[in-house]
Amino acid sequence: MKPLILISNDDGYDMPGINYLASVARQWGDVIVVAPDGPRSGASLSVTFQRPLSARIVRQETGLTVYACNGTPTDCVKLAISQFCPRRPDLVLGGINHGDNSAVNVHYSGTMGVVIEGCLKGIPSVGFSYCSHSMDIDFQPMRPYIDKVLEYVLAHGLPQGVCLNVNAPDANHYRGMKLCSMGSGLWKNELACMDHPRGGKYYWLVGEFDAETRDTPSSDFRCLKEGYITITPTKTDVTAWEAMNELAGLQIEAGG
Amino acid sequence: MKPLILISNDDGYDMPGINYLASVARQWGDVIVVAPDGPRSGASLSVTFQRPLSARIVRQETGLTVYACNGTPTDCVKLAISQFCPRRPDLVLGGINHGDNSAVNVHYSGTMGVVIEGCLKGIPSVGFSYCSHSMDIDFQPMRPYIDKVLEYVLAHGLPQGVCLNVNAPDANHYRGMKLCSMGSGLWKNELACMDHPRGGKYYWLVGEFDAETRDTPSSDFRCLKEGYITITPTKTDVTAWEAMNELAGLQIEAGG
Repeated sequence: MKPLILISNDDGYDMPGINYLASVARQWGDVIVVAPDGPRSGASLSVTFQRPLSARIVRQETGLTVYACNGTPTDCVKLAISQFCPRRPDLVLGGINHGDNSAVNVHYSGTMGVVIEGCLKGIPSVGFSYCSHSMDIDFQPMRPYIDKVLEYVLAHGLPQGVCLNVNAPDANHYRGMKLCSMGSGLWKNELACMDHPRGGKYYWLVGEFDAETRDTPSSDFRCLKEGYITITPTKTDVTAWEAMNELAGLQIEAGG
Repeated sequence: MKPLILISNDDGYDMPGINYLASVARQWGDVIVVAPDGPRSGASLSVTFQRPLSARIVRQETGLTVYACNGTPTDCVKLAISQFCPRRPDLVLGGINHGDNSAVNVHYSGTMGVVIEGCLKGIPSVGFSYCSHSMDIDFQPMRPYIDKVLEYVLAHGLPQGVCLNVNAPDANHYRGMKLCSMGSGLWKNELACMDHPRGGKYYWLVGEFDAETRDTPSSDFRCLKEGYITITPTKTDVTAWEAMNELAGLQIEAGG
């Protein structure tokens, strides 16, 4: 039986990035897409408790079924695995995201929400992102690198609790593909304050990315700038083991 | 000058948990609350790009200002620090959350979204959660533990890139407070499928927590069950350093 590959994203089911990724994944297995019915950028791992979820099939042909869902990216993965997948997926893919998910963006990204959710469920999971918001991207130069990742992960799996955050620079040619660490750059000037025509203020979330000079040569953000496709192995266990000794003074033994 | 303490949550600005935490925090500094204007449970680190943010002051007295905001918990922290805080906060607090944020819940929690956002901004940040959704909780037995944490963190700060996820069992008496690791339990049976009266299906996100038997004695979930208040030191750098060697075969050097 062919591998079953589940794909979602945070840009919406009908975007060029997810269409391209689905077309590549079909060479490797049966594909089911369960993705948001509109933009969910910045959804992180948010989940929906306040209202019911639903989904409709928007495309169905041999080896490919596409659902549009009213939930978040993480909702899509939960719904897909629980209700729509004919068997347990062998691989969960997020993307291709329209925009950079390196450095701190991993925390805000709905596409990486898909991937972390897949990883939490014990399924090898990979996110792909392209560092441009253009609607007119030629993903073809990225193709051999995507194939390499899919081939590797389908053959070897991934270490338990580890997923991959793959980012590609906006370029026609790549210097290669590197394992990287999460860059330490952050967003600054994140709020644009506007005067409401009837008085008062409102705000748009915007921001400039401030690349962190503390970044080591292995940081994903820096390697992207150097023309590499970056793979940031990303863990789901966020325990800060290295801080335990320093924080020992916080413990209290009350007895009883 | 007194420390400035910024508080938010994911349950909403007017909930008992955040009111109690604000009352405790006022003993330690000037308090500004910027919290969602309604429930945002499960918001994770989601941020709002598609619509503008706004906030209104709902309470103002010496040493305490409370804003209700239309955004997510993470939006609230960004908006507060950028626009509303008279100086950079010395401490960011999330909670007290109505519900357990141990184990995998750290990934979905909007309260921990507050805390991780504060930590990313370089501010010592702590989330408090209480393992019950009751609206009639006596938080008083938790008080000496909250005071201990606030005293420690205001005096010593926290290691860079590390925040604290503090959870209290639903009890009148605690055996003490322990440093813990993130438990490995997960949610199962997460979707309830319903028949729509006009035909078709819809789904509610529900779930049962499946405590993982692989959990070590140090897991937060297990220590909560034993009657301890748990502190899970939580890191913002999610790089899986330990996986780099195993994944080395993924690298490609194209040259050029």
